[in-house]
Amino acid sequence: MENIELLLEQINELIQKGEISALRELLTELNVVDIAQIIEEIEQSDRLPVFRVLPKDISAEVFAYLETDTQAELVRMINDAELERLLDEMFLDDTVDFLEEVPANVVTRVLAHSAPEARKLINRFLKYPEDCAGSIMTIEMVQLHTSFTAAQAIEQIRKTGVDKETVYTCYCTDRERHLLGSIPLLSLLLCDENELVGDIMEDDAQLISVNTLDDREEVADIVKKYDLLSVPVVDNENRLVGIITVDDIVDVIEEETTEDFEKMASLAPSDNEYLKTGVFRLAKNRIPWLLILMISGTFTGKIVEGYETLLSGFVALTASMPMLMGTSGNAGQQISTLMIRGLAVGEIELRDYFRVVFKELRVAAICGLVLGIANIGRMYLFCDGTLDVYFVVSLAMFFAVIVAKLIGCSLPILAKLIRLDPALMAGPLISTLLDMITLSIYFALAKVFLL
Amino acid sequence: MENIELLLEQINELIQKGEISALRELLTELNVVDIAQIIEEIEQSDRLPVFRVLPKDISAEVFAYLETDTQAELVRMINDAELERLLDEMFLDDTVDFLEEVPANVVTRVLAHSAPEARKLINRFLKYPEDCAGSIMTIEMVQLHTSFTAAQAIEQIRKTGVDKETVYTCYCTDRERHLLGSIPLLSLLLCDENELVGDIMEDDAQLISVNTLDDREEVADIVKKYDLLSVPVVDNENRLVGIITVDDIVDVIEEETTEDFEKMASLAPSDNEYLKTGVFRLAKNRIPWLLILMISGTFTGKIVEGYETLLSGFVALTASMPMLMGTSGNAGQQISTLMIRGLAVGEIELRDYFRVVFKELRVAAICGLVLGIANIGRMYLFCDGTLDVYFVVSLAMFFAVIVAKLIGCSLPILAKLIRLDPALMAGPLISTLLDMITLSIYFALAKVFLL
Repeated sequence: MENIELLLEQINELIQKGEISALRELLTELNVVDIAQIIEEIEQSDRLPVFRVLPKDISAEVFAYLETDTQAELVRMINDAELERLLDEMFLDDTVDFLEEVPANVVTRVLAHSAPEARKLINRFLKYPEDCAGSIMTIEMVQLHTSFTAAQAIEQIRKTGVDKETVYTCYCTDRERHLLGSIPLLSLLLCDENELVGDIMEDDAQLISVNTLDDREEVADIVKKYDLLSVPVVDNENRLVGIITVDDIVDVIEEETTEDFEKMASLAPSDNEYLKTGVFRLAKNRIPWLLILMISGTFTGKIVEGYETLLSGFVALTASMPMLMGTSGNAGQQISTLMIRGLAVGEIELRDYFRVVFKELRVAAICGLVLGIANIGRMYLFCDGTLDVYFVVSLAMFFAVIVAKLIGCSLPILAKLIRLDPALMAGPLISTLLDMITLSIYFALAKVFLL
Repeated sequence: MENIELLLEQINELIQKGEISALRELLTELNVVDIAQIIEEIEQSDRLPVFRVLPKDISAEVFAYLETDTQAELVRMINDAELERLLDEMFLDDTVDFLEEVPANVVTRVLAHSAPEARKLINRFLKYPEDCAGSIMTIEMVQLHTSFTAAQAIEQIRKTGVDKETVYTCYCTDRERHLLGSIPLLSLLLCDENELVGDIMEDDAQLISVNTLDDREEVADIVKKYDLLSVPVVDNENRLVGIITVDDIVDVIEEETTEDFEKMASLAPSDNEYLKTGVFRLAKNRIPWLLILMISGTFTGKIVEGYETLLSGFVALTASMPMLMGTSGNAGQQISTLMIRGLAVGEIELRDYFRVVFKELRVAAICGLVLGIANIGRMYLFCDGTLDVYFVVSLAMFFAVIVAKLIGCSLPILAKLIRLDPALMAGPLISTLLDMITLSIYFALAKVFLL
């Protein structure tokens, strides 16, 4: 799709000339993701005609890949019959995803034109809490009876498979829909055709499933750990209610990571793309933490005020404040980031805390020593002042780095312990805290050695 | 696997009692990922016996999920015949992954016991640059001739499928192995059994492939964009040489994200887990940036020294320095993080730069205004000094936030423009730069209004 510009030109030309069948032919040769991208990029007024040109099975797939605004726009413009056909072709999880984002009047219209059965399901899906397995699952899965033979199972897949989100892992249930096992399509193909599904399925310890209310991040961890293509979702009675496929898991991983990035930068997490978010909304996401951190700067100010006479006596002391605060903040940010990421991907666990602290003590001692020595050289070359001041700055830096590393590795773990997101304990928060501690150490040392 | 403690106990008991067949039975009921986890957690001396108990097809899969140290340990202990069987069962990409990490003497032994054909392939794989598609692909794929019927194709999958990394997307080639199309197994199952592969495969614009030398991050983007289960890898002559499956892509996404986190925290990226990395190595990853940033603190120091008389006249000015630097640093970090993430996931492109700047100007004005007003209240309540000092601090904050937002959104884009990783332009670097600018603005304003 490097030639999307070229394609767009071709398509615009066909639209202008009204060559509908040539347009349809061109479009149906493309991947649905690319068709969606093209619809996003053409003139707004051309979107509906182009969308209508598509065969209906393709148009439902394309619709799922459109951005929410475009989806809402198209739904507003198509007629009732078209809407019903579209909803009929779409996977339920795509419909739910779309409904979760669009304005209420669009939701009402869509629900009014869904089949009664589908409406009931959609309403149930919309009720699942946003971050749980139920909200991202789909019900289009292959269910097999344990009493089927492999040949019967394949026959069932042949008959119903085209409407399923994936057929590559099938799920085996009893009459009451209790999940009993899973079976990869490959196993069905490879085994003797008279073997029973119940005999070849993966069950007991090999069967991996999640609950509708499990956090979607936990589901992602399971799919990653076991390299699954899909995972079955069960209710509290172990009845199969849906599946989650790996492509949705990839999206979950991306969204959760973005949320971590936002929290680490002291931003209120937002589901919307930056470019599509309004200026006031963006400001609103940023101001709370900036305010809190600014106000806590009062304490740092008080510390500085308390050492007024000391500071006015040694200008090099004041001049080194920014560098010291910066270094301790950077040192703290390095380790807190490592901890947050390590906790997120499961490389570090709560029980590792003391190992981490012991390790950081040693790493900090090395870092502090190197930086302290380098600082004496730096000040000797570039700064005014006497050797005793250089010494105080370096000593303060040594201790500040040690405190920074200890706090930087402790706070994320502490957050996890009290069930807060470790990502909150990142850069800005830690820097502000370290500003206070670093200056207190600094001035205390200065008082001892210089006065 | 919540009951892994229980399982471990059971297994330890069976080992002690020497009940080999019971042990084998218990293990083979488990998922290979769980077996690998158990081998990691039992006594080192029990690892080899437990590993030997496993049926050889399972043991190869389990081996692929073990950590590198354990893999190397096992390879050192098993005999030549066992090593040959293991290598024979393993997927080539797993063998290559393992060889990329272990000591040279292990590599030599493994290569010596590989079949000549495999050795040639392994050597070729080991030569691909670390971050390219070739280094993560596998050669175990299903290749179909375009002249096959659907029934013949399924027969071929039945015959050879068990050794393939995935059979769910098959790839169609001509006699010279040129890639002509792809075909989902589902299409083969659903179509008439006499239809020709060449007629039902996805080709031309629908066929998505990558080159062996493409960056693995680009490959991940393509798999994400098109929701693929696997993507074919071709050489410069469009000959099919391998495939990359979605589970490996999930790992790539995770590793690349971790690298971004590390760069953003001014750490040298590292492939190793934190807990397994030595203290000196960790210190070495952290010291360079800490040193560079500390030394550039000299400039900030010089700025402070230049305003010596001003600062000694107004203690509230000195006391507000940390808060001002903190606020501008936090404001800059907020937007730089949004930009870095937006560029990484493709929500923001280079061409959006001016839209971003215009947006940030407005967001910054709102943030700056709110913070400035809040600051006057804060200083009135908590700080010494006169109203003109409060005013200067607030005005400096207003401008500092605007500069912070502009620099924070510009540097990541600039980095991308000159082909550096935008993640480098994050917290610590931007804070250090902003310290200088903020203090310059601050003191200049103070001079104008207070002297």
